Amino acid sequence: MELLREMVITDGKVYDNNVLKVDSFLNHQIDAGLMMKMAESFYEYFKKEKITKILTIEASGIAPAIMVANLFKVPMVFAKKSKPSTLKNNDVYTAEVHSYTKNITNTIVVSEKFINKDDKVLIVDDFLANGQATLGLMEIVEKAGAKTVGVGILVEKSFQDGRKLLDERNVNVCSLCRIASLENNEVKFNISDDEK
Amino acid sequence: MELLREMVITDGKVYDNNVLKVDSFLNHQIDAGLMMKMAESFYEYFKKEKITKILTIEASGIAPAIMVANLFKVPMVFAKKSKPSTLKNNDVYTAEVHSYTKNITNTIVVSEKFINKDDKVLIVDDFLANGQATLGLMEIVEKAGAKTVGVGILVEKSFQDGRKLLDERNVNVCSLCRIASLENNEVKFNISDDEK
Repeated sequence: MELLREMVITDGKVYDNNVLKVDSFLNHQIDAGLMMKMAESFYEYFKKEKITKILTIEASGIAPAIMVANLFKVPMVFAKKSKPSTLKNNDVYTAEVHSYTKNITNTIVVSEKFINKDDKVLIVDDFLANGQATLGLMEIVEKAGAKTVGVGILVEKSFQDGRKLLDERNVNVCSLCRIASLENNEVKFNISDDEK
Repeated sequence: MELLREMVITDGKVYDNNVLKVDSFLNHQIDAGLMMKMAESFYEYFKKEKITKILTIEASGIAPAIMVANLFKVPMVFAKKSKPSTLKNNDVYTAEVHSYTKNITNTIVVSEKFINKDDKVLIVDDFLANGQATLGLMEIVEKAGAKTVGVGILVEKSFQDGRKLLDERNVNVCSLCRIASLENNEVKFNISDDEK
């Protein structure tokens, strides 16, 4: 998506260790108009699937996910990073998600009430790097007996393992901006297959 | 807002200690169509103000806030409950927010880049109970030299202190659903002044 790539170049900041900071428009301050356009891109890409639910993980997946849900006219569910006090252990699906950046493992949680075996789920998230969050969400969908129909990603770090792991599972992934490299603190895009 | 009150009655669950669980449509699974209608209500109520920014707090404030931001065509900023590793201490505004429910105090954080002294800020959040989160967000706006123009709340527990504390500060509050009491695990609304 050309507009998103332009904003990554003009407003993104690259730090050491492959850190790309996009907090001025994607995950701290959020450009609502851009977010709506990205949601429309996902809708165009996945509209022929009979999506029944959008699934994401708190916190920065929520903004794109709710806009996508509004276009598909289906509910959005966000996985929580800790179990709410009002949910009991046997009422939830969980998955372990390791963060390589923070070097911690979180248990993510979704109430079993909100994904059922008939659901066709579109997973939406802001970043795809090592893919652990997305795989955790897919695990929850599988535990519910439902089907992950696709994955919509705003920014993919194609040089890390996530995309490969999803492709190996034959998941239909739509990444709006694919970054081939952040070496020498410079953004290089992978535009051989735009918007897929 | 009639539709929201109906959903609180049909889909909300009341537990002991004044806990109202609305996780099937507001803060775990989210009804995107309802969320859009609520955002439109805030837009109608506050549209004459020259709002330049929507401010909320992760995680459950993000969905309503991004939709409101899209209607006002301004950026949305969400305060984080912990400081991201890419932000330094002197680059952020912070406030202490005590949660009576969980009996913990969090430091909430907003990068100083994203609120400036010319901003007219509309704060949006899902719940108003004791008001600590809203007051923390207002403190951050004040530290930035900006102005809180109003507060938009989905569900207000009018029997707790938050609304009173905001009224004492002469803040323009719009609560879409005002709950007068949850005694005996029964929802009673305060509809003497609808949608304010």
